[in-house]
Amino acid sequence: MQLTLDGDVVRADSRARERFYDSRGYGRVRGGDLDLAPVEAAHLCYRGDIDAVDGMDVQELLASGTVSAVDFLVYKDLRDRGFYLTPAREGWVDDPDGVDFVVYPRGQGPWDDAVAHRVRVVGERDDVPAPSLGDCVLAVVDEESELTYLDTATREIDGTSAADVPAVRGELLAERVLCWDPPEALYRQAFYGQRLDEDAVQLSLVEAAYLARAGVLSVDGGADAVVARGREVEGERFDRRLGVYAALRDSGVVPKTGFKFGADFRTYADVESVDDLGHSELLVRVLPASHGFEPRDLALDVRLAHGVRKTMVFALVDDGIEWVQVERLTP
Amino acid sequence: MQLTLDGDVVRADSRARERFYDSRGYGRVRGGDLDLAPVEAAHLCYRGDIDAVDGMDVQELLASGTVSAVDFLVYKDLRDRGFYLTPAREGWVDDPDGVDFVVYPRGQGPWDDAVAHRVRVVGERDDVPAPSLGDCVLAVVDEESELTYLDTATREIDGTSAADVPAVRGELLAERVLCWDPPEALYRQAFYGQRLDEDAVQLSLVEAAYLARAGVLSVDGGADAVVARGREVEGERFDRRLGVYAALRDSGVVPKTGFKFGADFRTYADVESVDDLGHSELLVRVLPASHGFEPRDLALDVRLAHGVRKTMVFALVDDGIEWVQVERLTP
Repeated sequence: MQLTLDGDVVRADSRARERFYDSRGYGRVRGGDLDLAPVEAAHLCYRGDIDAVDGMDVQELLASGTVSAVDFLVYKDLRDRGFYLTPAREGWVDDPDGVDFVVYPRGQGPWDDAVAHRVRVVGERDDVPAPSLGDCVLAVVDEESELTYLDTATREIDGTSAADVPAVRGELLAERVLCWDPPEALYRQAFYGQRLDEDAVQLSLVEAAYLARAGVLSVDGGADAVVARGREVEGERFDRRLGVYAALRDSGVVPKTGFKFGADFRTYADVESVDDLGHSELLVRVLPASHGFEPRDLALDVRLAHGVRKTMVFALVDDGIEWVQVERLTP
Repeated sequence: MQLTLDGDVVRADSRARERFYDSRGYGRVRGGDLDLAPVEAAHLCYRGDIDAVDGMDVQELLASGTVSAVDFLVYKDLRDRGFYLTPAREGWVDDPDGVDFVVYPRGQGPWDDAVAHRVRVVGERDDVPAPSLGDCVLAVVDEESELTYLDTATREIDGTSAADVPAVRGELLAERVLCWDPPEALYRQAFYGQRLDEDAVQLSLVEAAYLARAGVLSVDGGADAVVARGREVEGERFDRRLGVYAALRDSGVVPKTGFKFGADFRTYADVESVDDLGHSELLVRVLPASHGFEPRDLALDVRLAHGVRKTMVFALVDDGIEWVQVERLTP
């Protein structure tokens, strides 16, 4: 069987189309013949279905750089898992932007309409720009060539937490606000702050800034003094975190510190009283929308969140906030 | 009872010594009288044992900055947990350097010789220089004034993994080395690399560089070519990681990628065969000795390691390597 490399396409004949496309979903039909992406041809070589492409075996295809090793590893892994998939090229699949492979549901192929996963291949050392996340699965190839799949999706936030808090007086002490004698609802119903004892409640700077802006908390210097302190100790990160804190509260969700989980916030969707507090559902990390992820940091966050039965959400802050959820996927 | 602030010491009389030192371990005896650190005096105020220090109650002691809020929170928490403790001041305790409090075993106090914990207080936003870790417990006060205790200690690494590997030939492909037909011992006994299939094994760049330097792996360009590729994709971080990889292997421990845990390596102390692989014991993160930790990153690493029943170890690289283990502590 004759296969020739023509630019970035491997041309094959109608017999190849019957054997590889019709029955196993490789390539794209052109007239009655078959076009294969080099990674597909390399996989057919690797399996022994074809001997060579333009005289190159799979070792040579990889060594020459005709086929990228990471693409090949991901392609092979998804085939090993029983999927048919198509390289995401203009004209080969709908909406190829931002992904490398379109993967069909098991038992289906390029002749069907359904898509199971849109997969982007990244190496462990590649930079992953935050805005490129959402509506794709990252297939991360680590330094030992093991694969980790991370499913990314944009999402909304909503909850039913909505307790009213009467006016409260507080004192700004370094990086916290101390309320020595607050109304009970502050902590017990609305879950602001952390109790020092039976009476006193300590608010974080974001909590205090939010409550001061809402006219609930009075503190010397007002909200401005609290925000100024926040910026002093965190820089512009404080404004991002305060914006996300406010958006979460305004969506009916109670954010509390995520420090123990290495995140900005953990969130509770339905707080009526701290005496009957459910499990917190989300871990939220606040980042500027321009952030570039190291895949390893993503893996760390997602693994930790999974281990504590929470969902990892990144709050990407620009003029607005985009919420992107990332979860481990076993295809 | 008269208590006066004299510089950074609160002076009290012999009656105070009897009540607070002899029976409850506050302060330091001076002659027959008692010196208290302001944080101790603030705690006595807070408990209602004394009314004021120089006319200031606890709110004023904190508001005036006479007592730091984070110190007070940690002092109070340790007292609440039933410990006696002494502020780490020159002349008050042995070896006060690098810590804020010396904590005695429960039931003991400053009149005994034993020390349970040497505690350093840090705020969530403080920078923690890597060389300051080891032989201390970090008491991290997060933004909501909750406490997390992290026990840090220097340690050694050792294991019994020591398989010999016959010569092997490999091919450098971007960020990995592919061995198409390696001796079985490479993967099965010595646990180098990751299998592509029944035959081929993929080595990471650190594995390949280590094996090439040891004269086991032959590859075009030799070890230098592999190291050059590593530096190309990771910069000087590659040299640090290779140094740590080699030190681990030379200590009888098998390092494998820690990517899924967000670390550089996970390690196996006693590998005889991959068919009978135990649980990996350590997660290792490689850092320059000059690194400054954000407490939140420390909390994230330690929490994750605990969740997967491993111990978090930081390999701090300078001329040599210092191994610092960090674990969550509930005092």
